[in-house]
Formats: sequence, C-alpha cells, structure tokens
Amino acid sequence: MRIIQKYGGSSVATIDLIRGVAKRAITAKNEGHEVVVVLSAMKGETDRLLKLAHSVTPDPSPRELDNILATGEQVSIGLFALACQEFGEKVKSFLGFQAGIKTDDQHGRARVTDLDPARIRTELAKGRIVAVAGFQGVNRHGDLTTLGRGGSDTTAVALSIGLKAELCEIYTDVDGIYTTDPNICDKARKMDRISYEEMMELASLGAKVMEIRSVELAMNYGVKIHVRHAHSQAVGTLICQEDSDMEKTPVRGVTLSVNEARVTLLQVPDQPGVAASILNVVAKAGIVVDMIIQNRSHNPEPAVEKMTDFSFTVPLPDYAKTMELMEAVSHEIGAKSVVGEQNIAKVSLVGVGMRNHAGVAALMFQALAKENINLSMISTSEIKISCVIDKKYGELAVRALHDAFELERPGDKVI
Amino acid sequence: MRIIQKYGGSSVATIDLIRGVAKRAITAKNEGHEVVVVLSAMKGETDRLLKLAHSVTPDPSPRELDNILATGEQVSIGLFALACQEFGEKVKSFLGFQAGIKTDDQHGRARVTDLDPARIRTELAKGRIVAVAGFQGVNRHGDLTTLGRGGSDTTAVALSIGLKAELCEIYTDVDGIYTTDPNICDKARKMDRISYEEMMELASLGAKVMEIRSVELAMNYGVKIHVRHAHSQAVGTLICQEDSDMEKTPVRGVTLSVNEARVTLLQVPDQPGVAASILNVVAKAGIVVDMIIQNRSHNPEPAVEKMTDFSFTVPLPDYAKTMELMEAVSHEIGAKSVVGEQNIAKVSLVGVGMRNHAGVAALMFQALAKENINLSMISTSEIKISCVIDKKYGELAVRALHDAFELERPGDKVI
Repeated sequence: MRIIQKYGGSSVATIDLIRGVAKRAITAKNEGHEVVVVLSAMKGETDRLLKLAHSVTPDPSPRELDNILATGEQVSIGLFALACQEFGEKVKSFLGFQAGIKTDDQHGRARVTDLDPARIRTELAKGRIVAVAGFQGVNRHGDLTTLGRGGSDTTAVALSIGLKAELCEIYTDVDGIYTTDPNICDKARKMDRISYEEMMELASLGAKVMEIRSVELAMNYGVKIHVRHAHSQAVGTLICQEDSDMEKTPVRGVTLSVNEARVTLLQVPDQPGVAASILNVVAKAGIVVDMIIQNRSHNPEPAVEKMTDFSFTVPLPDYAKTMELMEAVSHEIGAKSVVGEQNIAKVSLVGVGMRNHAGVAALMFQALAKENINLSMISTSEIKISCVIDKKYGELAVRALHDAFELERPGDKVI
Repeated sequence: MRIIQKYGGSSVATIDLIRGVAKRAITAKNEGHEVVVVLSAMKGETDRLLKLAHSVTPDPSPRELDNILATGEQVSIGLFALACQEFGEKVKSFLGFQAGIKTDDQHGRARVTDLDPARIRTELAKGRIVAVAGFQGVNRHGDLTTLGRGGSDTTAVALSIGLKAELCEIYTDVDGIYTTDPNICDKARKMDRISYEEMMELASLGAKVMEIRSVELAMNYGVKIHVRHAHSQAVGTLICQEDSDMEKTPVRGVTLSVNEARVTLLQVPDQPGVAASILNVVAKAGIVVDMIIQNRSHNPEPAVEKMTDFSFTVPLPDYAKTMELMEAVSHEIGAKSVVGEQNIAKVSLVGVGMRNHAGVAALMFQALAKENINLSMISTSEIKISCVIDKKYGELAVRALHDAFELERPGDKVI
C-alpha cells in the first residue's frame, strides 16, 4: 500500500519527537508499505520566523516572507531524513519545488495548480522513504510559495492524489475527531468515521484538527484520510465518503466559535442591491463574512418605505474596521444606524444525517431554551445549524446540545 | 557600474545590522550603480543548524545536511529584502538555484560549474536591488548543495564573473588586509592594495578574511575585490592583479600559524619512492600536509646505506592519527624511528616583490636569530618564506619580522 503520512509541528517539536516520527515511518515501511512523509516546521519555528520578519517591517512582502517561512519545513525534513539514516533506513528528502508541487502566484496562500512527483516515484521505487517539506511549492517563475497556515495538510492530500496513495494519515496531537471539544464537555466522544462534508463544517467552525481546504481537496478526489495521534498507536478517525457503515445519528458534532462579532444595520431600505452594496464594501476590505441574516422589520404604516434589519458576523479582529466601514455605508444607503456586538458565541450542530431529520432544529432550540439561552441569530444549511448566543453561555450551550443529542454514545438517536 | 556586495555573518548578525547593510546597498544604488548583494547566514545560525543536525546523528548525510544548512542564507536574504522594502526600495531576493548557481554533486563542498544569472539580469534591468543567498547552489538533479565554509565569498566572485561586475566588495568585520595580525603586533598596517597571489598566501596562512578558493577564482577571471568593513565608510584593501602602482616592498605581510604539528621520520633509507610511499599513506587518510622537508643526514661511513630525515607538518587535529600511521610506515620502510612535535609555530613572510630581492631570506633569519629564535624547518616558494619555530616565540617572531622589514610604513624598503 502507498501511504502518505503528515506530521504537524507539535509532532516534530524536538529531536526526540522527530526520532519517534522516523520510527513510525520505518515501521510502516517494514510492514510492506511505500511511505511518503510530509512534515511541518518544528513547533514555534514558523512563529519565530514570522517574528523575525515583522521585526524588520510590519508589512513584509509576501514573496520575501515565503522565502523566510519555507525554511522551517526545510529543516524538519532534513532532520527527519538524518534520523531515518541513523536508524539505518534509506531515505531522501525533497523540498516543495523538488517534489514537483506547482502553485499559482499568490504568495502566502498559494493554491496547488499542478503536481509532478516524478522524483518521489523514482525514490519510492528504489525502496526509499521519501520526506517532503509541507506548506511550500513553487510558482511558474521558480519562486517559492507557501500554502498558508495548515498548508502541510494540503501538501499531504495533493501528494495522495498525485501518487494515487491508498491512504493519507494526518498525525497530530489529538487522537481523532471528537463530537465536541473535550475541554468543554467531558462526555465528548471520538468518532471512528466522519464524512468529508461534516469534517469541513467542523473544521471551519473551530475544530482545528485539519485545514478545511485540504479536506475539500480530499473530498473532490476521494482521498481517504486517517486523523490520528502522532505518538499513540490508537486508531483515530477516518474521514471518507459518507456511506452506509457510518453512524446513523443525524447530528455528529457540536462546535463553538467565540472569535466573531456581529454587526447590524438597522432599518435599511428594503430594495434590490442593498445587501450587495453593503457586502461589497466589506469584501473589498478583505474581510470574510460568515453568517448573514436579513429580517424584514414590521412596520405598521403601509405608506412608509419598507425597511429591513441587516446583520452579519465577521472575525473579531476585523470588528473595529467593519464598524467604521458600516458607519459610512449606513449613511450612504440611508439606514437608521449601526449597532455592533462583540460578546457573542456561535454554537453549531453538524451532521450529514440532518438532511433527513426534520426535528433537529426544533430539538436544538428546545435544549437551549431549557437553559434560558436566548438566540440572536440563526443560520441553517443542509448539514449544519448555527445559533449566535451570548458569549457567556457558550460552553453551557455545547454541553446542553451534546446531552440533548446523546452524542456521547454512537448509534441512531431517534428524534 | 555593476557592483557585487557580499556581507558575512557578523555583518548580518542582528536585525539592526541587516538594516545597516540594506542602507549601504541602497546608497550604492542611489549613486547610480547596479547592486547585487550576497549574504551569509546570520552569525551563529549555521552553527545552530549544524548542532541540530548533529544532535540527530554524529555523521549526517551531506545531502540532507545541505538542505538544513542552506536555510540560514535563505532567511538572511528574506530579511534583507524586507529591510530594503521598509526603506522604500525595490528589491528581489533569489536562492542559489533561482540565481542560476549550478554546482557539481559534492554536497558540503560543491564547486560552481555553471552560472545562469538570467533572472538577476532581468531584475537589475528593472532597477531593483538583487539579493542572492550565498553559500548555496543546485546540482544537475535539482538538489541543493553548499559550497563549504566561506562559500558565500565564492558565490560573490562567481556572480561577479557571470554578471561581468566591475567590482566585488567583500564586507567583513575587519577594515582590510593588514601586514600582520594587529592583535599580535600593534604596528600592523592596513594595505591599500594587494595581489591575488599574496592574498592567497596570506589567506592560507591564517589571515582569515577571505576564502582562498574564491581568491583563486577571482584571480583567474581578473575580478577586482574590495575587502572592507561592513559598518565603516573607510576604504579597505583592493585585491587585484599585481601592477606597477603597487607598493614596491618585497615583503607585504607576516603571518603566524599555530595550528600545525611536525612529524619526522628519522634515518629513512634514501631511495626513490620513499617520500611518495610516506605521503601516500597520509593522503589516503585524508590528511592535508603543508610543509615537507627532507634532509640528507651526515653519515661518516661511506659503506653504510645513505639515510635521510623526512619531516612534514600536518594540522594539529590530525597529529595523533598521523603519528599512528607513521609508526607503521616507519617499520615498513626501515626508518629508525618517528618523532613528533606539537609545540610549533609557523611564521611566514609573503610578498610578490620577493621574487626580485635576494636578501629577504637572509634578513628574515638574521632578525629571528637576533631574538635567539631557533629555526627547525624552512620552506620557500617564489613569494613566501616560512619558518617553523618553537610555539612560544610565535608572537615575538611576528613583531621582530614586522620591524625588520619596516612593514609599518608603505614604500620601498631597500635590503
């Protein structure tokens, strides 16, 4: 079997851990597999390099920053290869450009456009373990690019596709994907399997085990991913196509995000194009909007122009900037005023099974109401329901929902 | 004018120093020059990386080690480029492979075999400063190589050749080439000019300002080198072809080396091939011999086979190994015994003018004799005379010779 193993920064934080990772790769090879190992920078190294760059300038050029940041993974694969050799194992390491990882020109968040892993194939055929620097590629000019935080996951999935690997193992410092954050809810349970779609919703909502883009990529090409602990033998969670073997629960996980803020424009004229003109301003400032809700306000006087309230959430660090932009927009489009709220939390239920269970939302709202938790925004998709609540109730809401949907036990919760 | 500026590790040891280096490059550009900057790793960085690698294995694979070591310069050029941008200057950095520095396959001590600086030319034409990572190149397989310690000098000279630069500036932490070590002799004087040949002899003898291979390369292509202080405006020393403008002194500098040991085989049969068989053994062990002296011993009995004493010097760290090898060789070739001496110093005079001055050796021996310093070995070349003396007299010998040849003042010392 051809296996891609990806180890994150905390799994290669020290020389001893790197030795452990090398042993793990060698074990897989000795079991008869072809093994390609993708490594992140040693924990703290990327931050050290970022700090160095920022001590030169607050606004580093993305191209030069990529040159600097790419060194972290370069050192990791070198040390890993040396550890393998010290154990008597044949190994060769490749930088992104040597591994044929071609990207577009977007430094700092480049996308893989092409893959030519000829050198990797040659070395695998020679019976060698191959180590590849994660997070990095090369653009058509021959300049180094990086794939953004979590980009090593993308490297691993891209290589899985290009090398037609049977399995992509993502080694991390947790032993799998949980129904919710075990630090918040002690009944949180590790899942054996989860679908790509569910994983994407869980990832984007705060379960930061894997980078969302890489899950999407894996889904598009059907790459099976095994998320597991780097220094434990326990089986982790398999991320794969939804299939009949999966648990039948409508809800798979509960997530909590406290890194957003809400902005509301009150009494916006309810005309075509108004929502677009609001969001255009936000998008132009490079701010990513998450939830968007528009509510018709009840106006008893039919002669008066129809008005609506328009709310959306943005990442907390962008809150001040967004409020500033909205003050201007509000004036322009004739809204009454802008109000903002930073003390919010978003609690979400995720599950592919939700599609076929009408009662999920009702049970969710009921469980939250039972704890006297008020909902200020609700947003639903096919496999997710999110509610914005007062931040102080965040953890309580997670526990209440975990209990209500009986996520601590696998199986088919009947609603 | 097209200028290559090379800055060593101590010149880019901190962010502030990197800013200073950036200012310097910008100044040169504002004076109307095209500027290519070659940088070493920040001081201590290469040692840190070496230590990391050695903490994995005492005997790291040269290819993997090169991957690790090459990151030092990669970070330097990134930070330098950011500093330039912070000063509002247009700049682009290139890794060795991007700068078209092709080498052979000898990892850790690769030689530049070809240069294709097309990308550098393009960027210079756009009015940009170009930063190039020193010390590194790429071999025909696309693997990273390093050029050995001091390899950034080689990068700078190679780029000077490939780009037909008018001047190659080597910025360092001394302000030029001195007649001798100022720490030993306070009358040491900075020279304005020195020939390639003299510089090579001075470099190999311990004046560690520039790597000897790069001086040789510069000589072969007539690249003018200006060695100067990175953080001072003072003019340094120009290394160039010997010409009529140069000082007429027969002796240009005095050097001292205390890192060698002497090995002597006593009463070696004086037959053809004996010297070769001794030195073959040493060479096979990878030990580099410096001075070699063979003396016919006076034997009053003509019937007895002719005997000779055979001495040579080796680097101090190779002394024990050499003695061990010679014990075996001595037995084989029928020498009487082997004696060694570690407490030696080699003091040398260097000067192109020596060729035309018969009295240099005589004045040298006389000056040493005046201080009661005994000579145990003498070796001469066209532009150098070296004497091995008792180590404790090393500094005294340097001062005595500096005085005797009046090196403290420029001009034509008549012997």
